[in-house]
Amino acid sequence: MTFGAIEAGGTKFVCATGSGPNDLQRVTRIPTTAPDETLTAVLDFFQAHSSPLRALGIGSFGPINPHADSPAYGRLLNTPKARWSNVDIIEPFQALNCPVAVDTDVNAAALAEYVWGAGTDVDSLLYLTIGTGIGGGFVVDGTPHHGLLHPEMGHLRVRRLEEDTFDGLCPYHGDCLEGLASGPALEARVGTQPEKLPSDHPIWSIHAQYLAQACATLIYVLSPERFVLGGGVMQQKHLFPRIRHHLRQELAGYVDLPRLTSDLDSYVVPPHLGDRAGVLGALHLAQRKALESHSQVPSHEHLSEHD
Amino acid sequence: MTFGAIEAGGTKFVCATGSGPNDLQRVTRIPTTAPDETLTAVLDFFQAHSSPLRALGIGSFGPINPHADSPAYGRLLNTPKARWSNVDIIEPFQALNCPVAVDTDVNAAALAEYVWGAGTDVDSLLYLTIGTGIGGGFVVDGTPHHGLLHPEMGHLRVRRLEEDTFDGLCPYHGDCLEGLASGPALEARVGTQPEKLPSDHPIWSIHAQYLAQACATLIYVLSPERFVLGGGVMQQKHLFPRIRHHLRQELAGYVDLPRLTSDLDSYVVPPHLGDRAGVLGALHLAQRKALESHSQVPSHEHLSEHD
Ligand SMILES: Nc1ncnc2c1ncn2[C@@H]1O[C@H](COP(=O)(O)OP(=O)(O)O)[C@@H](O)[C@H]1O
Ligand SMILES: Nc1ncnc2c1ncn2[C@@H]1O[C@H](COP(=O)(O)OP(=O)(O)O)[C@@H](O)[C@H]1O
Ligand SMILES: [Zn+2]
Ligand SMILES: [Zn+2]
Repeated sequence: MTFGAIEAGGTKFVCATGSGPNDLQRVTRIPTTAPDETLTAVLDFFQAHSSPLRALGIGSFGPINPHADSPAYGRLLNTPKARWSNVDIIEPFQALNCPVAVDTDVNAAALAEYVWGAGTDVDSLLYLTIGTGIGGGFVVDGTPHHGLLHPEMGHLRVRRLEEDTFDGLCPYHGDCLEGLASGPALEARVGTQPEKLPSDHPIWSIHAQYLAQACATLIYVLSPERFVLGGGVMQQKHLFPRIRHHLRQELAGYVDLPRLTSDLDSYVVPPHLGDRAGVLGALHLAQRKALESHSQVPSHEHLSEHD
Repeated sequence: MTFGAIEAGGTKFVCATGSGPNDLQRVTRIPTTAPDETLTAVLDFFQAHSSPLRALGIGSFGPINPHADSPAYGRLLNTPKARWSNVDIIEPFQALNCPVAVDTDVNAAALAEYVWGAGTDVDSLLYLTIGTGIGGGFVVDGTPHHGLLHPEMGHLRVRRLEEDTFDGLCPYHGDCLEGLASGPALEARVGTQPEKLPSDHPIWSIHAQYLAQACATLIYVLSPERFVLGGGVMQQKHLFPRIRHHLRQELAGYVDLPRLTSDLDSYVVPPHLGDRAGVLGALHLAQRKALESHSQVPSHEHLSEHD
């Protein structure tokens, strides 16, 4: 039996069916327009599928209610994507007659990396994405962390570099991490799309320093066993050694463990699943939901290498 | 049957026996000197107790290995308290012939507040102590968070206030949160013990701003359902409204939930267990350990109000 997966993003919804990284089918991109229009097109995609889905998983942009026991489960809160505020992202899919699970896009990506990617040998994994926005997902012992709502790690404050006079783009905080170091912030600083900047452009050094500061803070607060940096901006592979270099300085040897000193190369890593982490995470959310629903499903050992 | 508890601190070990907040007995302070001397005195305390202990719990200063499945469980790492580096804090208590559990002092305090104090109505609680150092403990669904080693939240970086020229006291980072805003940092700034400063001294405003910055970062990263601020410095009760005021500004309404806006007074709170949180948390660690050891113990409902 097959599972359905949606990575719900601000520019596109990525939909797929399947059962894991080696069986991901019909991967389809549907543009994010008005909620009705987009959600109807997504529903059509799944209804056009020949066989019924065992369960559907959604990794969504936020803020969104990720608490399965809440009456507002799957409902978006106020979001800068105005038309999507208060939209219930589960309701339209009741038509599929299968259990539906929702979590944040970054928790989904973290989960996929934990189960099938960069984290199969650890018990906790942090996934930070640096793209249009900056966001983080954290998985401990197989469970994505939520708390009050869910983390919004992109909005932590970093210490401004002395030479940096850029105001920052966050509509709420101005110069929080996302305001200073997202893809659009990079672009606003230099007036060129970041993908077109040469790797020796001086902005990368500033960028790496802010990201390293954020990594240090996240390590001090969460102490993850592995730290995955993903998202469009991190396709600049030269950022990895730069970030590790500044991170080493930030940590200053305070936590005297090999992973945070000599072994930083295998600690701060790119996603193993590339840009499929989000949709694969959604798939795994569906599989977990099916397990919870106590029906005939693949055994847990089959789903994860952590046991 | 009774449990043993140790709050192992840099200046004193607080020892007690009992079964909970209403049954905490023989609370005794033993000064922290050389490891042998202190640990022998603590062992004597428990051996002088008439009946055998069901289990012993220790909430310790760190960094310490808190992983029960590690061969180095209960061993201190390199610590600024030089003589204590690499000391095994469990080994001497094998003489008591009972299971021994160890966690950090702040995780123990967080656990006690979660089980018996300020967090009985929530599923996740963050405890930040502002004392000689600054440290944090985080409990989710009844389990203290560890990760790679354990969090070191006191060392996150805050953004320096423009008017602030104080270098900071952290031997590793200089002006991290602990470097700028611990009790000793306060004292170094003004040349007077913080407990003797009037509540209208201008330093409190600076102090409150740094703590509010840290609270905002911790909320963005952990999204706790309740936030407890404890430790000696927080005995200055006027800090609570000041911190909430600046925290509201830091958050800027980004996460639009009542607890983070209108209900901040019941979100950022003092410990309900006062300075007994640490030793009570150690007691609860002992009770959990006993439960794990599958013996005849009080039922779980008896231990916690969360079920
Ligand atoms: N190869 C690249 N190098 C640098 N920046 C990139 C690259 N590819 C995309 N980006 C930037 O990343 C951002 C898009 O992030 P991405 O993770 O792809 O999507 P989203 O965050 O919208 O889901 C844009 O700001 C874009 O300019
Ligand atoms: N009432 C008070 N007001 C302000 N600061 C205090 C007060 N009591 C203690 N402190 C400060 O708190 C620090 C001690 O913190 P405490 O939590 O009591 O112990 P420790 O952190 O060593 O376990 C010292 O720097 C002390 O000056
Ligand atoms: Zn922001
Ligand atoms: Zn520090």
